[in-house]
Amino acid sequence: MRGLGLVSRFSTDAKQFPEAKQKFIPRSGTYPKGFSAGGSCCGIKKNGKPDLAVLFSDRPTTTTAVFTTNQFCAAPVQFDRQVIQGARQSGTQAVRAVVVNSGCANAVTGKQGLVDAQSMAAAGDALVARVDGKSTVGGNTLVMSTGVIGQALPVDKIAKGVEAMEIGQEHDMWMRAAIAHMTTDTFPKLLSREFELSGGQRVRMAGITKGAGMIHPNMATLLGTVCTDTAVSQEMLDRALAHSVARSFNAISIDGDMSTNDTIAVIANGAAANARIEAEGPEYVAFREALTEFMAELAGLVVRDGEGATKFITVEVAGAKSFADAKQVASTIATSSLVKTAFYGQDANWGRILCAVGYAGVPLETTKVNMAMYPGDGSAPLVLVQRGEPQLPLDEERASEILKQEDVLVRVELGLGDESARMYTCDLSHDYVSINADYRS
Amino acid sequence: MRGLGLVSRFSTDAKQFPEAKQKFIPRSGTYPKGFSAGGSCCGIKKNGKPDLAVLFSDRPTTTTAVFTTNQFCAAPVQFDRQVIQGARQSGTQAVRAVVVNSGCANAVTGKQGLVDAQSMAAAGDALVARVDGKSTVGGNTLVMSTGVIGQALPVDKIAKGVEAMEIGQEHDMWMRAAIAHMTTDTFPKLLSREFELSGGQRVRMAGITKGAGMIHPNMATLLGTVCTDTAVSQEMLDRALAHSVARSFNAISIDGDMSTNDTIAVIANGAAANARIEAEGPEYVAFREALTEFMAELAGLVVRDGEGATKFITVEVAGAKSFADAKQVASTIATSSLVKTAFYGQDANWGRILCAVGYAGVPLETTKVNMAMYPGDGSAPLVLVQRGEPQLPLDEERASEILKQEDVLVRVELGLGDESARMYTCDLSHDYVSINADYRS
Repeated sequence: MRGLGLVSRFSTDAKQFPEAKQKFIPRSGTYPKGFSAGGSCCGIKKNGKPDLAVLFSDRPTTTTAVFTTNQFCAAPVQFDRQVIQGARQSGTQAVRAVVVNSGCANAVTGKQGLVDAQSMAAAGDALVARVDGKSTVGGNTLVMSTGVIGQALPVDKIAKGVEAMEIGQEHDMWMRAAIAHMTTDTFPKLLSREFELSGGQRVRMAGITKGAGMIHPNMATLLGTVCTDTAVSQEMLDRALAHSVARSFNAISIDGDMSTNDTIAVIANGAAANARIEAEGPEYVAFREALTEFMAELAGLVVRDGEGATKFITVEVAGAKSFADAKQVASTIATSSLVKTAFYGQDANWGRILCAVGYAGVPLETTKVNMAMYPGDGSAPLVLVQRGEPQLPLDEERASEILKQEDVLVRVELGLGDESARMYTCDLSHDYVSINADYRS
Repeated sequence: MRGLGLVSRFSTDAKQFPEAKQKFIPRSGTYPKGFSAGGSCCGIKKNGKPDLAVLFSDRPTTTTAVFTTNQFCAAPVQFDRQVIQGARQSGTQAVRAVVVNSGCANAVTGKQGLVDAQSMAAAGDALVARVDGKSTVGGNTLVMSTGVIGQALPVDKIAKGVEAMEIGQEHDMWMRAAIAHMTTDTFPKLLSREFELSGGQRVRMAGITKGAGMIHPNMATLLGTVCTDTAVSQEMLDRALAHSVARSFNAISIDGDMSTNDTIAVIANGAAANARIEAEGPEYVAFREALTEFMAELAGLVVRDGEGATKFITVEVAGAKSFADAKQVASTIATSSLVKTAFYGQDANWGRILCAVGYAGVPLETTKVNMAMYPGDGSAPLVLVQRGEPQLPLDEERASEILKQEDVLVRVELGLGDESARMYTCDLSHDYVSINADYRS
């Protein structure tokens, strides 16, 4: 599946990325059957860096996606909604490819933007037809764009780039695709895992995401695609995605802004030949939990690359009456600039966290609230608040030890029920301000 | 009304405050009749700075207040709610004094906190009895506290301080009270104005506020008291406050956090002897609009002192179907870290603003949205978006001229109706991070 045209070569060596992020860059992987990937430099980015990626399935897929709810949603989002809808209604049309470009978001580009998204998808459809050696009914390609907004998409460069794209199943080809997703990201975000379904059948997932910034940073931001060789029905895939997105990509926050381009897609091609998952049951639950865990880890990579981030903070709220309540409180804590700045300052500011709990809008019994801080190294937690009362004087020495670590978990117990939720965020640093004050210039 | 005891002297010279804030510090004032003020150093702050203020009416007042909705509301808030309620239900009890301390918020202090708030109020009630020369039924004092949370209030220091407090009607005495409100504020926030009611009757208002930080900064934050000599009924005062707070103190945002202690009170003593405002009508409307304008200006002083703020940004959303819709969109723009950081970077990032409009949760017709930026010097605006389309290429030179100014207004027109709302905010700077990362230490 190589040699479809000219290829622009670039290095996939992990050493070109920051030292501190090396541990998050995989050197090998176990990839889902029937999928290929590739990345190249097609000339969208003025600096000549990789800006075009393709993910490809050798057979029809069951595909689902969630999109930004921003009303100024970008052309690719509008277009992909139609593709997904078309595949559901058609017996013959199915997603086979995802074409992704960085450098230009094709957002706030009016009607021409939609025409350009169609042309970009047509390039993907042509690739499918070429690889298959026969024409298709079309509608086989999802498109994703990220980068500068308000600029027209250079469609010709993308079409030529897709035509010349080299794709393959090797780890290096997936790395090429991941690198071509990057905008202000400081490292490529690629993950692959093999999971066991409850019947012992092994299935695989590979995911690429990009976000950099504050997770939803500069308009055109959060993109993610998970490819799996699991055989699963449309309905069960939809349900699994809804469940897992709420606990992964919708559970991360850097600054709370929601981009015009945010898209998370899951593409399942059934190449693992497991007994197709078509109903609730142990196989479905195993798949759903595997997907949730995988996507939470994938989304975590975006937080690790939060603009200026120095810490990975997990906010866990337990003892809520509902998942929605728990999430609401966790989200309020995780998006508080004061809380995030305190973490940057390595300040165990229980007051700011308690304050955020208090204005989250979820009814509380304040005298039942407990709060503790858990260090990433697994050593003993530090209790901050018990039954609504601060545990003073604070053990500043222990607090300082915990807050020096890169990973910190804050656990808040509401004492009202059995539901819990997690949010993943990072601290708010001087570098966040620097990066975002100077982005356009 | 002087010489009730020992007085700790301190300078009220404006020159001790930052050069850039000089223009916001009044050198004289026209104060409401029948009110006195004072401030002193009672020893709560370890650095010996002013930390105790009293506002005093020589006659019974009609008083109303709005409080934080944070469920971890501080003891003074819980106590004041009872005082306000008591005055409404009683024919004889009325608010006569406000005792304010800085340095300790009396927040998250449990049952003892409420006892301490009562003791603080008792000191105010005793002052009233002493000045009147006769005992009262009590319940005459509102208390407000701001500063560090989780620490017991030093009630003895406050009681002695109130006993020794010198109060007076002169500008300098109001300045003393304003200075004693300060925590991380860099300048005292005092305002006084004379207004004309529709019948030609002149009334006066004086207000003191504090906020510093991000308006709702470090837990114990936003306090404000407006004293007026207008004669107005309880019901009409309540209505006027609800209207004006929505357009002033609830229309400012620095970081969106809501403190445990936030309190805004309006105290009307009727000393102007105007025909008492008891119903809707031109007199009420004149009063309401005067109060709204006054409180918007007072709240603006808090934004001027936003932690690390370099700009005063007014976000105006017009053409909405309702005030609530307009406010929701304005608030979403004004609380976006990306938008605020762009202003700090003097970047005309219309994309981030448009993005915030898109996720505000108010239904839009995106092709009707206009956006422009107005400089504070009154010169021509710069159109950024027309009918949902960015006006590219952006006039970077003009954008740069506008964004160099301290005051900038962003106007967004939704094209859906006739309602509008404003939010007042500041930029998000490196200093914001520095101040808040290091607050407790």
